[in-house]
Amino acid sequence: MVNYPHKIRPQIQKHTSQTKAVDFANRGMSFEKMINETNQYYLSRGLAVIHKKPTPIQIVRVDYPQRSRAKIVEAYFRQASTTDYSGVYQGHYIDFEAKETRQKHSMPMKNFHVHQIEHMEQVLAQKGICFVLLHFSSLKETYLLPASYLIAFFKIDQGGKSMPLTYIQEHGYLIAPAAFPSIPYLDIIKENLLGGKHDS
Amino acid sequence: MVNYPHKIRPQIQKHTSQTKAVDFANRGMSFEKMINETNQYYLSRGLAVIHKKPTPIQIVRVDYPQRSRAKIVEAYFRQASTTDYSGVYQGHYIDFEAKETRQKHSMPMKNFHVHQIEHMEQVLAQKGICFVLLHFSSLKETYLLPASYLIAFFKIDQGGKSMPLTYIQEHGYLIAPAAFPSIPYLDIIKENLLGGKHDS
Repeated sequence: MVNYPHKIRPQIQKHTSQTKAVDFANRGMSFEKMINETNQYYLSRGLAVIHKKPTPIQIVRVDYPQRSRAKIVEAYFRQASTTDYSGVYQGHYIDFEAKETRQKHSMPMKNFHVHQIEHMEQVLAQKGICFVLLHFSSLKETYLLPASYLIAFFKIDQGGKSMPLTYIQEHGYLIAPAAFPSIPYLDIIKENLLGGKHDS
Repeated sequence: MVNYPHKIRPQIQKHTSQTKAVDFANRGMSFEKMINETNQYYLSRGLAVIHKKPTPIQIVRVDYPQRSRAKIVEAYFRQASTTDYSGVYQGHYIDFEAKETRQKHSMPMKNFHVHQIEHMEQVLAQKGICFVLLHFSSLKETYLLPASYLIAFFKIDQGGKSMPLTYIQEHGYLIAPAAFPSIPYLDIIKENLLGGKHDS
C-alpha cells in the first residue's frame, strides 16, 4: 500500500459530494462528443485523420432472422486493451485516451487500466505521439498530459488512487477553451510534442 | 456503367466454381488469424505496435441483471467507416485493410466500401503509410498493394467488380511466405514504403 494517495483522499471525497449535478463544459456536450466534434473538424479541413475506435464487444450469440440483417442477441462489453483514439497528423502516429471527472483537485486513476498503460509505453517506444486528454468538468478545464507523465505517476501510484491537478498542471498543457473546435488539442501537439524525440 | 470489368467477369466466375473448398494457406489458419499473429510477433519484439480495430457494433438494448455484468441483448453490425488495422512503426502511422479470395485471377472489389476508400485517401493526404494486404488462398500468395493503386483502380472500376491479379502484381509486392511471422509485411514497408513521399 502506498501512503501518498490516502492523504488527499478525504479532500477528494468532499468535493465529489458537492458536485453531484452533471456539469459538462460547453453547451452541455459530453466530453466525448466534444472530442468527436473536434476530430470531425480536423478531418473535414484536412488537418488530421483521428478516429475513436469502436467499443470492444464480445459477441456470444447472433440470430439471423429471415429477410433481415443479423441480430446480436447476446454480447458483453470487453475492457479496452488499447486507447480510445488514434490517427495520423502529417505522417505522425497520434494516440490518446480521454477521461473526465467532476472532481476539482485530482483525476481518479481507477479508469486507467494496466493494459492501457502498457499500450502507451509500447507506442512511446515506437516514437508515436501519445497523451491523455483530462477534462475537469466542474472547472471547465481540459489538459493534455503527455503519456510519459501518466505512466510515471501510474508506477508510483500502484494502488490507483488519484492524480493531483497540480501534477497535471506542472507537466501538462491547458487547452485553451474554444468555440470551434471545442478541444483544439492539435495546437498543443504542433507546438510542444513534435520535437526531435518524436522524429526518427 | 463501365465496360471493362464485364470483360473479365466470366473468367472469374469460372474459377470461383472450381475453388469452392476452403483452402487457407499456412497450417489451416485464416488470413485474419495470420495477420493477428504477425502483429503479435511485431508487438512482442518491440518492432511495431499494430492492432486490429474492434468490429463496429450498434448497440440498441442492454440489460443490467442484478449482480452480473451488463448484457447486450440487441445490437447490429455496422459497416466499418475506416480500415481494420492501424498502428505505429518508428513514429510512422500505418493503416491497412486485409482481404482474401479463393479466386485465382482477381480480387473482388465488392468488399471495399466507398467510406474505406475515402479514409485511405484522407490517410495518404496526411502522409500516413496506407495499403491493402490481398490474400489469394488458392494460390497461397499474399500481396501488399499501396493504397494509391487501390484508389486509382476503384475510381476507374466504379461498378466494383474485380481487380486483376496482373494489376496487383504490377503495382504491389509479393510477401514472401514465412513460418514466423506468417505475413512479414513490415519488411515490405521498410524496403519500399518509407521513401521521401511518406516523410514530411
